[in-house]
Amino acid sequence: MDETPQLTAYCHHYQRAAEVVGQRWMPQILRASLSGVTRFSEFTSSIPGLSDRLLSERLKALEADGLMVREVVPETPVRIEYRLTEKGRGLADVVGELAVWAEHWVTLEEIEATS
Amino acid sequence: MDETPQLTAYCHHYQRAAEVVGQRWMPQILRASLSGVTRFSEFTSSIPGLSDRLLSERLKALEADGLMVREVVPETPVRIEYRLTEKGRGLADVVGELAVWAEHWVTLEEIEATS
Repeated sequence: MDETPQLTAYCHHYQRAAEVVGQRWMPQILRASLSGVTRFSEFTSSIPGLSDRLLSERLKALEADGLMVREVVPETPVRIEYRLTEKGRGLADVVGELAVWAEHWVTLEEIEATS
Repeated sequence: MDETPQLTAYCHHYQRAAEVVGQRWMPQILRASLSGVTRFSEFTSSIPGLSDRLLSERLKALEADGLMVREVVPETPVRIEYRLTEKGRGLADVVGELAVWAEHWVTLEEIEATS
């Protein structure tokens, strides 16, 4: 990670980024989207525990922040797809590094104790 | 990021990791800690908007998950320091990538509109 700046304790840009992605379910929704999930029902079926209400809230927040677009595909019945924008796909490395960390550090015992 | 696995929509390990770090203030607390902040009052003074109550909750959660240790330094008055464990420091690349993304994508207009 040669491009990583030396970290200061605080940064305005980072604060805003943390407000966007540091919310419950966001890391899971971003991962699912990056892996190719596009439809509302696919998100809820691939993320155990995520309610329709919270998914809807989070998708709206991602749209409002320019990380995701909602596309209406004119079919019968109409199909709605959620896709990451370039800004949203820019988080792939964050999600990727969290996945690497999780594989290395999160133990099965820990998962069983908390699920 | 050659080590990044091809992402599936869901992973148990990642789900658990997201529960730990995908909470409000966690990305900011981790960044401050990685940058050398160790004391309770340093955290609150370096992270605008973070209350004592929420910081206390988050530090306890980080301890419970083995990401942080609370050290009592026997001085007069006693000094208490919070330091990341090896597991906690393992999140440096996640924080670093989020910082890189924030520098690139979060605009000043966006910061001003939401602060």
